[in-house]
Amino acid sequence: MNKVNIDPNTYVYPNPVTLVGVEVEGRANFMALGWISRVNSKPPLIGIGVNRTHYTAKGIQEIKTFSINYPNAEMVEVADYCGIVSGTKVDKASLFEVFYGFLKNAPMISESTLCMECKLIETVQLPTNYFFIGEIIASYTEDKYLTDGQLDIKKMNPLLLTMPDNNYWTVGEHAGKAWIIGKKLKGNGS
Amino acid sequence: MNKVNIDPNTYVYPNPVTLVGVEVEGRANFMALGWISRVNSKPPLIGIGVNRTHYTAKGIQEIKTFSINYPNAEMVEVADYCGIVSGTKVDKASLFEVFYGFLKNAPMISESTLCMECKLIETVQLPTNYFFIGEIIASYTEDKYLTDGQLDIKKMNPLLLTMPDNNYWTVGEHAGKAWIIGKKLKGNGS
Repeated sequence: MNKVNIDPNTYVYPNPVTLVGVEVEGRANFMALGWISRVNSKPPLIGIGVNRTHYTAKGIQEIKTFSINYPNAEMVEVADYCGIVSGTKVDKASLFEVFYGFLKNAPMISESTLCMECKLIETVQLPTNYFFIGEIIASYTEDKYLTDGQLDIKKMNPLLLTMPDNNYWTVGEHAGKAWIIGKKLKGNGS
Repeated sequence: MNKVNIDPNTYVYPNPVTLVGVEVEGRANFMALGWISRVNSKPPLIGIGVNRTHYTAKGIQEIKTFSINYPNAEMVEVADYCGIVSGTKVDKASLFEVFYGFLKNAPMISESTLCMECKLIETVQLPTNYFFIGEIIASYTEDKYLTDGQLDIKKMNPLLLTMPDNNYWTVGEHAGKAWIIGKKLKGNGS
């Protein structure tokens, strides 16, 4: 074993790339976000880690809804731009065709492959960030991203992000069926 | 716009694939986990969503430490196996060379490309899951996974997971530099 210690400020490999939609001061705004995870099975809850200083954090606390929107790899420039400029200075909603769903105040991006509108359930207060937990009220996609009625990641062609080297990546080759490929090891004394 | 509604029980595209290490009833155990996100910048906090019924949830609550271990794509069978069988029935620690770090009770996997040992900071109680938030105390890798001192995802070759279609994927092509490629859009009226 040749383990070396690296900076404990280590990231998830890789982060998915999403755009969080929120209304702030009466305007739709979108922020690039990689800190996201499902956190509960039933009901479907999803959590996002947002820096306390971000304009998006202010909007979510006020309106108590947000959306998650997946850019595809062709949208890499506009997705990155949404992570570079603040909604306090730039009208990022003008970059997209914006639509609304059941919640009426969670702006979503028509060009995205998958959009989820979420209702804020809980805010976890952490030293530099908020972790906002929302219930997924509805999810929107298009038929062209589905195979046999399920989202097909190769058709979605989403972006991945690695930090702190700050690179975007696409999804590569199929590597096996989950909850199946491991069955080969059953019977090896277990 | 041709949006269609799908089941709101929608997932993150894609989830990273990790193995969570914990001591339960005096033994090291490892569970496959895809619900994971960084949640705070300073200090470095990471959160994991674990079903309340899992053996791992019991261990984390008792010992108040856990580890995150990244399998590479060659470990797909053993990683999947750790998600199929429960530590209540199978000694999964015997599948790996296990090592310990500063915390002394967060078992880590020597074969992993990246291991983080974490100290439990907060437990968010949700209807079907716990969301455990831990501080990353130390991170371990090997020189062969680094480029210019930083983790190189192409050398790590981690696994990705999509649900509910339940497929594993590898990381594909480089798609741009984050916080740089979007600068091309600056000046377009913004």
